[in-house]
Amino acid sequence: MDDKQSGKKIVIVGGVALGAGAAAKARRMDEGSEIVLIERGPYVSFANCGLPYYVGNEISDRGALLLNTPESLKSRFNIDVRVLQEVVSINRSDKTITVRKVESGETYDEPYDKLVLAMGAKPIVPPLPGIQLSGIFNLRSVPDADQIKSWVSQQLVKRAVVIGAGFIGLETVENLVKLGIEVTLVEKAPQVLPPFDAEMTAAALRELNRMGVHVILGDGISGFDGVDKATAVNLESGLRLEADIFLLGIGVRPETGLAKDAGLELGVAGALVINEYLQTSDPDIYSGGDLAEIVHLVDGVRRWIPLAGPANKQGRVIGINVSGGKETFDGAQGTSIVRVGRATLATTGFSERTAKSLGLNFFVSFTTAGHHAGYYPGAKDMTIKLIVETSTGRLLGAEIAGREGVDKRIDVLATAIAARMTVSQIAALDLAYAPPFSSAKDPVIMAAMAAENVQYGTVRTVQVVEDLPFDNVGILDVRRPDEVEAGMLPGAVHIPLDELRDRFTELDTNKHWVVYCRSGQRSYFATQILLRLGLPHVYNLSGGYLVQQMRQDVAESQKSASDAKVAMI
Amino acid sequence: MDDKQSGKKIVIVGGVALGAGAAAKARRMDEGSEIVLIERGPYVSFANCGLPYYVGNEISDRGALLLNTPESLKSRFNIDVRVLQEVVSINRSDKTITVRKVESGETYDEPYDKLVLAMGAKPIVPPLPGIQLSGIFNLRSVPDADQIKSWVSQQLVKRAVVIGAGFIGLETVENLVKLGIEVTLVEKAPQVLPPFDAEMTAAALRELNRMGVHVILGDGISGFDGVDKATAVNLESGLRLEADIFLLGIGVRPETGLAKDAGLELGVAGALVINEYLQTSDPDIYSGGDLAEIVHLVDGVRRWIPLAGPANKQGRVIGINVSGGKETFDGAQGTSIVRVGRATLATTGFSERTAKSLGLNFFVSFTTAGHHAGYYPGAKDMTIKLIVETSTGRLLGAEIAGREGVDKRIDVLATAIAARMTVSQIAALDLAYAPPFSSAKDPVIMAAMAAENVQYGTVRTVQVVEDLPFDNVGILDVRRPDEVEAGMLPGAVHIPLDELRDRFTELDTNKHWVVYCRSGQRSYFATQILLRLGLPHVYNLSGGYLVQQMRQDVAESQKSASDAKVAMI
Repeated sequence: MDDKQSGKKIVIVGGVALGAGAAAKARRMDEGSEIVLIERGPYVSFANCGLPYYVGNEISDRGALLLNTPESLKSRFNIDVRVLQEVVSINRSDKTITVRKVESGETYDEPYDKLVLAMGAKPIVPPLPGIQLSGIFNLRSVPDADQIKSWVSQQLVKRAVVIGAGFIGLETVENLVKLGIEVTLVEKAPQVLPPFDAEMTAAALRELNRMGVHVILGDGISGFDGVDKATAVNLESGLRLEADIFLLGIGVRPETGLAKDAGLELGVAGALVINEYLQTSDPDIYSGGDLAEIVHLVDGVRRWIPLAGPANKQGRVIGINVSGGKETFDGAQGTSIVRVGRATLATTGFSERTAKSLGLNFFVSFTTAGHHAGYYPGAKDMTIKLIVETSTGRLLGAEIAGREGVDKRIDVLATAIAARMTVSQIAALDLAYAPPFSSAKDPVIMAAMAAENVQYGTVRTVQVVEDLPFDNVGILDVRRPDEVEAGMLPGAVHIPLDELRDRFTELDTNKHWVVYCRSGQRSYFATQILLRLGLPHVYNLSGGYLVQQMRQDVAESQKSASDAKVAMI
Repeated sequence: MDDKQSGKKIVIVGGVALGAGAAAKARRMDEGSEIVLIERGPYVSFANCGLPYYVGNEISDRGALLLNTPESLKSRFNIDVRVLQEVVSINRSDKTITVRKVESGETYDEPYDKLVLAMGAKPIVPPLPGIQLSGIFNLRSVPDADQIKSWVSQQLVKRAVVIGAGFIGLETVENLVKLGIEVTLVEKAPQVLPPFDAEMTAAALRELNRMGVHVILGDGISGFDGVDKATAVNLESGLRLEADIFLLGIGVRPETGLAKDAGLELGVAGALVINEYLQTSDPDIYSGGDLAEIVHLVDGVRRWIPLAGPANKQGRVIGINVSGGKETFDGAQGTSIVRVGRATLATTGFSERTAKSLGLNFFVSFTTAGHHAGYYPGAKDMTIKLIVETSTGRLLGAEIAGREGVDKRIDVLATAIAARMTVSQIAALDLAYAPPFSSAKDPVIMAAMAAENVQYGTVRTVQVVEDLPFDNVGILDVRRPDEVEAGMLPGAVHIPLDELRDRFTELDTNKHWVVYCRSGQRSYFATQILLRLGLPHVYNLSGGYLVQQMRQDVAESQKSASDAKVAMI
C-alpha cells in the first residue's frame, strides 16, 4: 500500500453533477487521498434533468434517477459520503469547514487540503403573499419530485399552474399534461423559452396549444390565495388562476452565501469568479457548475450559464486539479435543447437578441428543410436560424425548431462554433448521407449556403417587409397557385416561379421588390432571375412565408394574453 | 433584356447530382448563358440513393424519385435538357462535342464555351460466362429499378443472390427481405461493408442473420448458369447458388472513356485529375463527382471517393465557376452511413485499416454508450471507434455501430475532423443535453475522453489480449457476478470492480494484467485502482467484452463461409 500517493484530503460540498464527478475523477487520479463528499439533501448524484419525466411517469423507475448512492460511491470510489449534512462556514485561515448535521443540529469542523464548492444553484422563490402555503413546489431534487407525485395523487389534482416557461417549466408542463392535468403556463417574459429569439418559439406555442395548455405571456405572479393549501395564484395583471397545484420554474440563482461569507470573489450575476483551472480567488478552493461564472466560447466574456453539460465536464477537470493536475476548462456556449410535445427546439451560441444587445455586426438567415431526404417517407421540416458575423462569415449562434433530427443539427453547429468555422466552411462539411438519415445537402449545409449567399452579397435579404425604408415597396409571392390559397402576405402580387421569366415585365422596375415563397429557397431563385433580368431592387424575404407565420403566431399569442387581461379588468 | 450577362454556352454531360446541380447554379449566376444538359438515359436529376428503397416499396411514390424533369428544368432554370442523347467525342481543338441520339443513331456537333463532364461512374460488370443472361441486374438508375421491380413480380421471385456487400448491396438486401424474398449475399472481401474495419461490421452481420440472410464472405463469382434466364451463380470456391434474380453490387468505376479519348489527364484509380476549381487538365472542361478524384481532407492526398454528398456540393462550385466565378472545393473525407435492419453503421475519415496502410502513427480507442440518458427509457447502445494520431491527439477517423443516434454522432465527428480537432478539443465540446436526446456526457464526449486518457498515458490499452508480447499475462474480469454468467474471456480471473480494493492482493504483481468489463469503462476505473495500489503492469482491454464479441462474431461468420466451402468440395 506504499504506492498510494498523497494522503491529501479533498472535501467536496454538494453531491450532484459537478461534485460527484469531481469526487470520482479525484479518486481515479489518486488512490491515496481522503475524499469526503458532503450533501445537504438525502441523495447524491441524481439525474435532476430527468425529474420532470419522472413526474410524468415517462421515467417510471425511481431508482434509475439515482445514478449513484452513498454506498456505491463508497464501494466503487472509496468516497466518504455524508448526506443530510450542511456546511455552515468555510474557515479559510485554518483550512477547515464547519458542518451541521441536518437532523440533529450537531456541528463539527472538518479540515481540508482542497475544497470543492459544488452547491450549484437554488430555485428563486419570490417572497410573495402565500408563498409558504402547501401545494406550491419547486422541481430541483428527488424529494421535490416525490412530493409533487404524492400531492398529485393524494389531492386528485385536476388543474395546475406552472410559473415560468423556461426549460424545466416546459418539460414539467408536458409531463403534467401526460397525467391528464389541465395546465396553465404563466411567463413574465413576452415569450416562452426566453433564451430563444421570440419567433423561434412558435413551434413550442403550437404544441402547447395542441396539448390544450393555456399560455399567459408577459405576466408575473403577485401572490397566492388559500388557507393551508394554495388554491389560486394572483398575477400582476390582476388575473387570478385557481388550481390544485402550483409549480415554480421561475429560475435559479447561484447558491453563493457560503462563498460570500468566506470572502471569495463574486462576479457576473453574483456567481463565483473562477480561473481556467476552476480555482476561485482562493487557490485551494475550486468551483464550477451552476455556482460559478463560465467563459462564453463565442466571445471569451465571462457569463453565468447554468447548464448540466458544462458542469459534468468541469467535475472531471476539478477532479484532476485537486489531485495535483493542471487541466484547463475553456468554457461553454450555452448549447441546449428541449422537447415540447412533438416539437424540439435547440440553441447554441448567441441568439439574435444577444448579438444585438452586444452591438455585434451580424446578420441572420433562416432556412427550412426536411430532416431527411424528401423522397423518403416521413421527412419533417426543421427551421434553422443562423446568426453570422458580417465581416468574417463566422457563425456566432444558431437556433433550430422542428421535430426529428433537430438534436443532430444543433450538435453539428455547436461543433462548428467551437471550431470558429465560417458559414462557407460549414457549407463544405462532408456529412453522412443516406435517405433515412439526411439529404444530399443536409439542412445544416442548406442553412450555411443560404447564409453564404447573404454574406457574399449574392442576395440581399430582409427579415420583414417593414425593414425596407422605402415608399415604393412591392411584394412578390412566387409560390405555386395551390400554395397561395391558404393566404398570402398583405398586398402581395402572385407570379409562380416557373412563370417568372415570361411575366417579369409585369413588375414595376422602380419598386423595391420583396420576394417570398414558402421557405425562402424558390424566392432566392426568383431574386437571381429578376436581378439578372435587370430589376435593380430585389430582396429575398428570409425564411419565407413559414417564418412570417412563426412571427405572427408569437405575436398573436402575446396579444391573446393581453386581451385576456383587458377582458378581466 | 440587355442586362442578361454573357451569352456564354455551357454544355453539361450527365444529368444526375453533379450535372443537374451545376446547371441550376449556373443559371442562378447568369441568366444570359445558354445551358445545355445532355443525358444518355431517359431521366435527369433522380434520387439514385433512393432506388433500393423504391425496390422494397419503402418509397412507394416513383415520382418522388424524379427530383426534376426536363420540363421542370426548362421552366424553372431555362435549361435545354436533351435526354436519350449520348456524347461520343469531345473535340477540344474546336470546342465542340459530338452527340448521338440513342434512339435514331443520328449524330450532331454541339459547340461549347465551358464543358462539364458529369457522367459519374458505371457499375462494374465482370465479363463472366452467362453475364448476359436475363435476371441479372445492376441498381444504378430508375430503369434498373423499374426492371427489377417488374422482374420480381412477373417471375414470382422467391430467392435472390446479391453480389457485393457494399452500401448499395446491403440496402438492396434489406429491401428484398422486406418483399419476402430469401436472400443470399456474396462478398469477395472477408467482411461485409469493406470501407469499415472488420470488427465494426458485427452489428450488420447480426442484423443480416436476424433477417435470415445467408452471408458468404471471401468468395467471388465465376459465372452464371441458365439458358435465356440466369438460374444459378457459380462462386470461385465451387459453391453454386440457385435463385430467381441476381443483383450486382460489385462496385463502380469512373466512366472516363470519353475524357481519356479527349486526352484529359487521369489520376488515381483512373479518375479524372481536377484542380481546386474543379477544372480538368483542360481549363474549359470541368468535372467532379464519381468521375474525378478528390482531395481527402484528412491528409490532403487525392483519392477516388465516389459518394453523393461531395458530388452535390461540387455541382454548386462548378455552376459558379463556369459562370466566371472563382469558387474552390477543398475536398471530402468519405463520410458515409448505412442502415441494415435495425442497425446503423457510419464512418468518417480514415479507418484503422487505411491508417495502417498509410503507415501513420496512431492508436484506436473503443467506447460504448447509450444514445440518450440511461435513466430515460429506450436508450440504445452505440459503439464508437476513434482513430487518433498519437503525437498530436488529432482525430483521423471514426466508425460507429448502433441504432438510433448514430447519424448525429458521425456528423459531429465529421465536423470535428474537418476542423482538425484533437480528442481533447472534442471532449470539451458543448453539445445539447436533455434526457430524450443525449446524456450529460454525450457518447462522442465519452469516446473522446477515453481516447484522451490513452493519448496522455493515463491508461495503457490493448486491443486483444494477444497484443501483449509477454509470457506472464493475466486476464481480469471486473464485471458484476450476474454479467459473467453468459461467459468470460478464456483464462480470466473474476473480481467485481466494487470488491477490487479488498481483493487486489489476490493478483500476482509480476503478471501483466489485462483488465476488462462490458464496455471498457469500469475496467478503466479498475486499472486506475490497480496502478495506484502498486501493480506495475496493468492494461485496459479497449471496448471491453462487447468489442471482443464483435471480433468473434465477424471471425465466426468468416469461418462459417469457409466451412460451407469445405463441406461443398
